[in-house]
Amino acid sequence: MKIKRVCILGAGTLGTRVALQAALSGYQVAIFDISPKALETSQKLMEKIVQHLAKGSGMDDTAGRNAIAAITFTDNPNVAIWDADLINESVTEDVEIKNAVWEQFGKIAPEKTIFTTNTSFLLPSMFAEISGRPEKFCALHFHDVFYSKVVDIMPHPGTNPSLIPVLMDFGKSLEQVPVLVKKENHGYLFNSMLMAFIGAAGKLLTGEVGSVEDIDKSWMVNFHMHMGPFGILDSIGLDTAWHVTKNLPDNASQRFAALLKSYIDEGKMGEKSGQGFYKYPNPAYKQPGFLD
Amino acid sequence: MKIKRVCILGAGTLGTRVALQAALSGYQVAIFDISPKALETSQKLMEKIVQHLAKGSGMDDTAGRNAIAAITFTDNPNVAIWDADLINESVTEDVEIKNAVWEQFGKIAPEKTIFTTNTSFLLPSMFAEISGRPEKFCALHFHDVFYSKVVDIMPHPGTNPSLIPVLMDFGKSLEQVPVLVKKENHGYLFNSMLMAFIGAAGKLLTGEVGSVEDIDKSWMVNFHMHMGPFGILDSIGLDTAWHVTKNLPDNASQRFAALLKSYIDEGKMGEKSGQGFYKYPNPAYKQPGFLD
Repeated sequence: MKIKRVCILGAGTLGTRVALQAALSGYQVAIFDISPKALETSQKLMEKIVQHLAKGSGMDDTAGRNAIAAITFTDNPNVAIWDADLINESVTEDVEIKNAVWEQFGKIAPEKTIFTTNTSFLLPSMFAEISGRPEKFCALHFHDVFYSKVVDIMPHPGTNPSLIPVLMDFGKSLEQVPVLVKKENHGYLFNSMLMAFIGAAGKLLTGEVGSVEDIDKSWMVNFHMHMGPFGILDSIGLDTAWHVTKNLPDNASQRFAALLKSYIDEGKMGEKSGQGFYKYPNPAYKQPGFLD
Repeated sequence: MKIKRVCILGAGTLGTRVALQAALSGYQVAIFDISPKALETSQKLMEKIVQHLAKGSGMDDTAGRNAIAAITFTDNPNVAIWDADLINESVTEDVEIKNAVWEQFGKIAPEKTIFTTNTSFLLPSMFAEISGRPEKFCALHFHDVFYSKVVDIMPHPGTNPSLIPVLMDFGKSLEQVPVLVKKENHGYLFNSMLMAFIGAAGKLLTGEVGSVEDIDKSWMVNFHMHMGPFGILDSIGLDTAWHVTKNLPDNASQRFAALLKSYIDEGKMGEKSGQGFYKYPNPAYKQPGFLD
């Protein structure tokens, strides 16, 4: 089947980015949110991203502005779902909210619509049944669309295998690198590895083996990366990291979760709150001299 | 104290690189090996590295050739140790061999000599006593000197703290980024994190969650790196990775160790044997189109 019209559910950071890239790639796009305020913020975020992309490429932002103008921003479910070939859902990472959304849209979606969820750590099998079409349900998980261009395609046991190549092609058409997650796995491929190495960094810190700065330097210099694990944690958000870490059973994770909680209790959530392991907007690891 | 003369014990890959960088940084350098053949190979490797560095910088290799010419290559312990301010030991990663070397050189070294070991996964406290000067004994661990420029400084409980700033300065003078490992830890800072993320990749593979290629793509694209975990394993050597992994107690590590062993039994050691997870010299992950 040919995908032409895409419906994005949830106008948060990730939904906004997926909607924008879909529009830039020539799809007809509708983005839905229950909050008109969120839709406004989403449109402003798109404009910022388009300006940033234009600056990076040295081209003007006409194509980007036209793409945004063509997007339908709506809080009306029936408008959002009209003629949609594919839904990509990015609503709040909460089982009950996602269940409610899939129950609602499962009833009003056209028969042709493919259902995909962008969940970060939950599993598609949790929502497949309530959507009413488990065979057309699959995880299609983006990272940040414009810098980290991997899209995970993760079926649940009831997904019709014919969906996989359709989603692989769709991912490529959005300028992403599609990878297949053959079995349901919390954290797909990349997030599993990311959490493992960040957990190891946390263990070095709580065990007082190394300082935040020295642990980050080790990673940045050896891998020629512009951030180490604690810079990455600040950009993910310490609250998000805590939600994942506190559910891991081993002692090292529990100690690290307690450390993250002590930061959160002081209002240090990472980059978004102005402070985490580093202070923003000019964290130490971005200063010239940090690696001297 | 001022370090002027450096004695490198062991003319393998890492000893060779440390000796060359020390000479390039203006130190007087002697490199010792019991095998005259190893010393010959070491000198040839230095010439290759110098040519490669000259090519990269667009300068000629005169300074590099002069630096190599000034190095003393010797299988005579008394010549190697003469007037040395610092020893950096990179002999085979084996407790008995390292003990024998430290016992021997502990007896003939000048009183002023600082003793440092470049061990990858062992601990300085294992060799401090037998060297006869535990208070002057510390780990000083390089990664590969020219690409991954971190040097770990890891004291054992008996190391005199005044040694730390001396070794920090010495590391900087070799164009490395020094980091302090405050407590003895197998794998310092970076190798702990590296093994954690590679272990997570191994778990995804043995659990049949993702393919070698898709796991590597996820890492490469999201982190903008030119290798993923299985490409990195091929460059480390599957035998080396197996030696570390087989000693980890958890089931996932044991399953991954068994997989590594099956590759090793087929002669697939990684890049050095021409095959590992990929085939060399032109592995799939370096082909244009791998990330399409």
